[in-house]
Amino acid sequence: MTKFFVPRGTQDIYGPEIKKWHSVEQRVRDLCERFNVEEMRTPMYEHTEVFARKDDASDVVNKEMYTFIIKRGEGESPSLTLKPEGTAGLIRSYVEHKLFASGPSYQRYYYIAPNFRYERPQKGRMRIHHQFGVEFLGNPSAYADVEAITLGLNVLKDLQITQYKVLINTLGDRESQDAYQVRLRDHFKDSIDTMCPDCQRRYVQNPLRILDCKVDQQHEALISAPSNVDSLSQESLNYFENLKNLLDESGIQYEVDSRLVRGLDYYNHTVFEVVSTDPSIGAQSTIFAGGRYNHLVEYYGGPEVSAFGFGMGIERLLLLCDDSIFDLETHIDVYGMAMDQESLSTVFNAINDVRSKGFSADLDMEGKSMKAKFKMSDRLNAKVLLICGGEERSNGQVNLKNQATKEQVTIPVSDVALQLEKWGI
Amino acid sequence: MTKFFVPRGTQDIYGPEIKKWHSVEQRVRDLCERFNVEEMRTPMYEHTEVFARKDDASDVVNKEMYTFIIKRGEGESPSLTLKPEGTAGLIRSYVEHKLFASGPSYQRYYYIAPNFRYERPQKGRMRIHHQFGVEFLGNPSAYADVEAITLGLNVLKDLQITQYKVLINTLGDRESQDAYQVRLRDHFKDSIDTMCPDCQRRYVQNPLRILDCKVDQQHEALISAPSNVDSLSQESLNYFENLKNLLDESGIQYEVDSRLVRGLDYYNHTVFEVVSTDPSIGAQSTIFAGGRYNHLVEYYGGPEVSAFGFGMGIERLLLLCDDSIFDLETHIDVYGMAMDQESLSTVFNAINDVRSKGFSADLDMEGKSMKAKFKMSDRLNAKVLLICGGEERSNGQVNLKNQATKEQVTIPVSDVALQLEKWGI
Repeated sequence: MTKFFVPRGTQDIYGPEIKKWHSVEQRVRDLCERFNVEEMRTPMYEHTEVFARKDDASDVVNKEMYTFIIKRGEGESPSLTLKPEGTAGLIRSYVEHKLFASGPSYQRYYYIAPNFRYERPQKGRMRIHHQFGVEFLGNPSAYADVEAITLGLNVLKDLQITQYKVLINTLGDRESQDAYQVRLRDHFKDSIDTMCPDCQRRYVQNPLRILDCKVDQQHEALISAPSNVDSLSQESLNYFENLKNLLDESGIQYEVDSRLVRGLDYYNHTVFEVVSTDPSIGAQSTIFAGGRYNHLVEYYGGPEVSAFGFGMGIERLLLLCDDSIFDLETHIDVYGMAMDQESLSTVFNAINDVRSKGFSADLDMEGKSMKAKFKMSDRLNAKVLLICGGEERSNGQVNLKNQATKEQVTIPVSDVALQLEKWGI
Repeated sequence: MTKFFVPRGTQDIYGPEIKKWHSVEQRVRDLCERFNVEEMRTPMYEHTEVFARKDDASDVVNKEMYTFIIKRGEGESPSLTLKPEGTAGLIRSYVEHKLFASGPSYQRYYYIAPNFRYERPQKGRMRIHHQFGVEFLGNPSAYADVEAITLGLNVLKDLQITQYKVLINTLGDRESQDAYQVRLRDHFKDSIDTMCPDCQRRYVQNPLRILDCKVDQQHEALISAPSNVDSLSQESLNYFENLKNLLDESGIQYEVDSRLVRGLDYYNHTVFEVVSTDPSIGAQSTIFAGGRYNHLVEYYGGPEVSAFGFGMGIERLLLLCDDSIFDLETHIDVYGMAMDQESLSTVFNAINDVRSKGFSADLDMEGKSMKAKFKMSDRLNAKVLLICGGEERSNGQVNLKNQATKEQVTIPVSDVALQLEKWGI
């Protein structure tokens, strides 16, 4: 017989695990609501050119995309790509629907969505992983940067994740980046032949990417590479100073890491990473990260709109959470038990009635022993037992037992919801 | 410049629309919790053979799947398919993780997930649409059927959708289905050459599928086709009688429609459709539909476990809802206004402080006019205004104004959250 199994690098989520996901998602959604950040959902796939930006040298875009063409003999069969990250589709949508021209000039969106990256699966790194991310559009000041980082740090606080540090850097504006590229090409020109094939591609496309190469990490030329500080324009330096002041005023502690460049190629000015300092977490220590991107809206055909965003992987977040912050138990209001098979229909309809009136309820439909029924009601932490046997049934009644107060009443089926309200269930 | 646009048959969801989605999803999740039905999430794609069951003659499986192979020179590159429906992946997961052997024998799962079908887009029919569905596993009695249908009808009630009818039919057990196939092949054998190519394929694979052919709807042979009633075994008839009795006892009105066969090939015994009778809804009138499938768990390598499920399209549900049931406005607790640029930092930090303490809040960061600021606070339905100018700032204070009571206080920044609590915000 064929054995069916979940595809490599993907997972099924159910049981106690789904309760953790619900809890994390609910906290994130609540926090976004508190920050007046609205959700935007974009499709699971986009036309490939939305993600494959020209001059993008990142691994995500170049090597890890799920790209496919569906052929049905219809004529146009565009190349489609499952979303590898959340920003591109959201900005495409923002431009397509001309959102920059309607509503407030500063708009904040969030998403919680799967990302698809065809990479080698490892702990905390799935082919389908899930990301919470925000994109704050239309505010050129560093207040937006600090507001977004504050939101992200509130997620960690809410999940009682305390072992982390905030690393920041600036890539500067375009002028500064161009100047730094020239310096980097000059620095690497004599040694690039001794570096990995990816670095050789990066040397042409964007030499900045060489700095976070995992293969050439220990290469002498990489270690001795100049920092970008000397290439920064005055305006870039001012922006960075302002950011640091605002972070100080907000009480957010940070370290400047001049080697921090991010894995996507559209950033300028601020880039940041919040990394775990929990010793039990391995190499994949980034909790959330992002930066400022002031030219992406233009790239997708919109006006000049400056923006700031970050992404936070849910799977990794769950690895960092202590299980004790979640309630993994099931709790119901009412558990129904028929004393005999003839009473089952009465119990069934009474349970469905209280369910439709807002109570959570369940029942045994399989004719298990009373002992097994009681065991199940304990397992579900039922607050009230609804019991019906021959005598109650013939009177159109059921017996209700309040598990906390031990109070019992025998009442008409139609009065059950009323009694539950009376008990404050 | 390249124009970037959302792929055909897909959509972006944001603004008032996302509020509707949140509301529907929250109601569905609440109802599932009341029915003690747990969510299960399976990956967006599966190995193709999970969906492409042998002998499946449905259009969904045969003509509309998003199937692709990712080649990265790695060796094994399996054929993957984006999920066209929710049941197959869930049952694959149930079997793979041996859930039938752990926990209660009757397990109920739900999902809310995108479905991918490469079909011609039309109103209420998207290439990526979203489905809420349930799978109730391990209860062979018709109570499970009625419980699931009751849950679905509760969703409609909660969304104030009242114009619908419930159609039910039975396909009988395997023995009955085999007998009916023989009868159908016999009935169609002389006319099959005059029917559409799909029907000719269906004739071989599963002649039942001919009955819901859209092309041959008016074909004489289809109109005169025998119903399956005469092919039903006694056990099948008993099951169906019992179902009808339980529906009657639950107060659920229904019609028996002996032509009802469902678009997926794994059903036996009960099939049902809840269809809209709202005259403003067009041809696509099914609201939710499903049935019993007692052999699918075995197909995926598990033991014999009987099951019942349905699927409900969220997009179509939204078409049927009246907008008046949704709150499409934004509501926040506090709106912050700096009277001058120097006070912005104080307001910004005060707003972030109340956000981190559980209040929803926003502020103007762009130095708009006071008139524009007040307009924005109205637009956001702010309950309290937090105002800070030169005088307050130099005293480390802010001014709070309760919009409902018109009460005003000038208090230290650190006391804002306390004052909000005092006001019962």
